[in-house]
Amino acid sequence: MTTAPRTRLSPAERREQLLDLGVRLLAHRSLDELSIDLLAEEAGISRGLLYHYFGSKQAFHEAVVRHAADDLIAQTTPPTDGEPLERLRTSVTAYVDYVVANHEGYVSLVKAAAGGNESLRAIYEDARSALNGRLFHGDDAGEIVPDTPAARLLVQGWSAMTEELVLSWIDDSRGVTREELLGLVVASLPAVVGVLGTGR
Amino acid sequence: MTTAPRTRLSPAERREQLLDLGVRLLAHRSLDELSIDLLAEEAGISRGLLYHYFGSKQAFHEAVVRHAADDLIAQTTPPTDGEPLERLRTSVTAYVDYVVANHEGYVSLVKAAAGGNESLRAIYEDARSALNGRLFHGDDAGEIVPDTPAARLLVQGWSAMTEELVLSWIDDSRGVTREELLGLVVASLPAVVGVLGTGR
Repeated sequence: MTTAPRTRLSPAERREQLLDLGVRLLAHRSLDELSIDLLAEEAGISRGLLYHYFGSKQAFHEAVVRHAADDLIAQTTPPTDGEPLERLRTSVTAYVDYVVANHEGYVSLVKAAAGGNESLRAIYEDARSALNGRLFHGDDAGEIVPDTPAARLLVQGWSAMTEELVLSWIDDSRGVTREELLGLVVASLPAVVGVLGTGR
Repeated sequence: MTTAPRTRLSPAERREQLLDLGVRLLAHRSLDELSIDLLAEEAGISRGLLYHYFGSKQAFHEAVVRHAADDLIAQTTPPTDGEPLERLRTSVTAYVDYVVANHEGYVSLVKAAAGGNESLRAIYEDARSALNGRLFHGDDAGEIVPDTPAARLLVQGWSAMTEELVLSWIDDSRGVTREELLGLVVASLPAVVGVLGTGR
């Protein structure tokens, strides 16, 4: 994708290439560490040109995070065939692998979104909604989750639990293997949704 | 508690009284809004005296948040008698009521802790650990939760789910009643822990 940096690209292609680079740099760095200077150096272009493409550091960060969120959503798209729980497992596996591979950037986004950066929060919330909403769209028969207000609330809770489980596990696996973690995350969705029948 | 503000108090009692006031003011305010000026005005003392007691605004905020966390932990102590799930329900009910009653302050603490205020994060994490750890201490027979690394990870996830459920529900209940919410939160703990047996 970036093997031919000297190739003549259209402005849109060049912008896209810079965003790809930003996403790659963000994998092992926090947003704070992703400076315009670093990007200009890595891309081999001037700071001025970067500002020309993105306007400001904040706008560049937003564009990179939106690009990364699109990647996450694309990479975790469940297969259209197969048993519901197998499809969920494939999607959850991709999510866990994504967070492991992009840990620094992911954590810094969660931090920025939770800490009050409103535009990054909006991008984060949109991505969360897309990931959660997909559980309903891909499951018209309600095989895993019925589409009710209480179920939507529970799915939001399960999603927060999943993020906490994955981030805690990356910090300290406590001997829990990746396969065990995946099993816990996948099985906990029907388990949690199951309380809709039994809970008061 | 504050009906006799003119009473002569020891410095420790006075400090305690100021912290109680801070916690009350924080119920319907964010940490940012809890200024030294406001507190001085509400307490009827000078700013200088407040700095004398606490040293700095940050130190005062930390002391208030620690005081509030202690209140939360005390108020949600499960009863020592009764069925495990009933004891859990009593504790969860107190937690939900606490978050409802102290919503502004609670949300601002979550935000500050997640957003990178390291000392507030430490207080928040300590409170979380105390609340989560209690689930194991009060349950020596492992009636609800066995004490294993995977179970501890799941309880941490359940705790994040609970916070998300309660805060989302306060923002928009979507027709889910308080009783239904309590039922969902309580029933989801054994449900989630149940996957330890079935999950791969």
